[in-house]
Amino acid sequence: MELTPVTDLPEIRPGDDIAALVADRADLEAGDVLTVASTIVSKAEGRMANLEEYPVSGRAREIADRLEGITGEEKDPRFAQAVLEESMELLIDAPFLLTETRFGHISVNAGIDRSNVPDHDILLLPKKPTESAERIRSGLAARGIEDVAVIVTDTCGRPFRHGQRGVALGWAGIPASRDWRGELDRDGHELGVTVQSVVDELASAANLVTGEGAGGTPAVVVRDWAFGDHAGSDELFRSVEDDLVRQALREWSIDD
Amino acid sequence: MELTPVTDLPEIRPGDDIAALVADRADLEAGDVLTVASTIVSKAEGRMANLEEYPVSGRAREIADRLEGITGEEKDPRFAQAVLEESMELLIDAPFLLTETRFGHISVNAGIDRSNVPDHDILLLPKKPTESAERIRSGLAARGIEDVAVIVTDTCGRPFRHGQRGVALGWAGIPASRDWRGELDRDGHELGVTVQSVVDELASAANLVTGEGAGGTPAVVVRDWAFGDHAGSDELFRSVEDDLVRQALREWSIDD
Repeated sequence: MELTPVTDLPEIRPGDDIAALVADRADLEAGDVLTVASTIVSKAEGRMANLEEYPVSGRAREIADRLEGITGEEKDPRFAQAVLEESMELLIDAPFLLTETRFGHISVNAGIDRSNVPDHDILLLPKKPTESAERIRSGLAARGIEDVAVIVTDTCGRPFRHGQRGVALGWAGIPASRDWRGELDRDGHELGVTVQSVVDELASAANLVTGEGAGGTPAVVVRDWAFGDHAGSDELFRSVEDDLVRQALREWSIDD
Repeated sequence: MELTPVTDLPEIRPGDDIAALVADRADLEAGDVLTVASTIVSKAEGRMANLEEYPVSGRAREIADRLEGITGEEKDPRFAQAVLEESMELLIDAPFLLTETRFGHISVNAGIDRSNVPDHDILLLPKKPTESAERIRSGLAARGIEDVAVIVTDTCGRPFRHGQRGVALGWAGIPASRDWRGELDRDGHELGVTVQSVVDELASAANLVTGEGAGGTPAVVVRDWAFGDHAGSDELFRSVEDDLVRQALREWSIDD
């Protein structure tokens, strides 16, 4: 398996065609996986915003005041409002905001970025990252580059372990996970590990070569990796019913 | 960045020298990262066990009975005993056991494996995976292969997202994470994302090429990847004080 960053991408602006920009700079082949950082997808989709666009609700003001009291740092209620508008559910409200975005991804501040945004205050995540991935995949196909899987990636933290790692937000041309059920180990026992989140692992692998910041390369080509002969699933984001940690956080927030 | 599985490793037995077995089969160079699945590290360290070795405590019997009641599946109290003995803290006791192992890693059943174990009932995780990684790294150096970082890996699930992904349990010759603090984005703003868990991302990348089961290759060489000029940290496992989810789980279990 080989990972190559796509270099020399320009600063992305609203309306830019990411498929075209990548196709001109990368030597893509059928079977490749292309990862694209959500920052440039968001920029192409015009997901920049300014805080003055967010009239503050009572709830946002309450959240910002509480955060300010706990952290001792100034908190802009307009930012809290932006987080709420991008979210379906608030899982943790202090000392930081952890929410479920409208497309099911759980992250701090609904994944809203305050760096990497020229001429605007904030950058929202793509509205529907799987549709974004499909659009890029179709754009490549329209240029004769068929059979390239596309993953829209982000980085985020997690419980239990320090540090951020790359994750998938949306994907096209590849299932989110592959299923090893029914496979046997060397001794003929059925495997305990059954579902492998390949899109997250590909996003993590890509994040090792993209870098962050000024020298960052927001797109990566993964070659010589194959999904193989497995059943696949597109369920990546857990529902509350299926997630004891979300259940515990709910009770904990209510008790609070 | 290029990932190549190490092929033709034999079935590993207690006392086997993993550094020697890998050195004979992989063309390792200074700067490479070698990932090694914890299963073979455990086997080399003789961490196989049989359930009859675990006299059942009252707590283990209680846990197994409760699990059996909730899941409707037969649960061996000797297995619950083994999980307790490998753990510092039980975070969730039903419908599955989530614990913190003695070396700080949080996983289901303390990472004890019931597949992949010839002639024994269970395979425990390595006792001190970072020491295991250091031993393999020294073993390579003793064979003239200097400057190879070693990561002992496992796969495990996580809250919020379905599926398992590769994670690091121990590491040597590389910090667990790299710090982007102080770096600026293209527009001169300081980056929001600061700490990247590179050992977990390398473990995830490697897991894409190892596979599971009979055809699995438990070691992978990562080439042309560099940690770069960053500050590093070896803190990978969060403490309770630093983990709201662990705090919520504690209260939730107590309320239960």
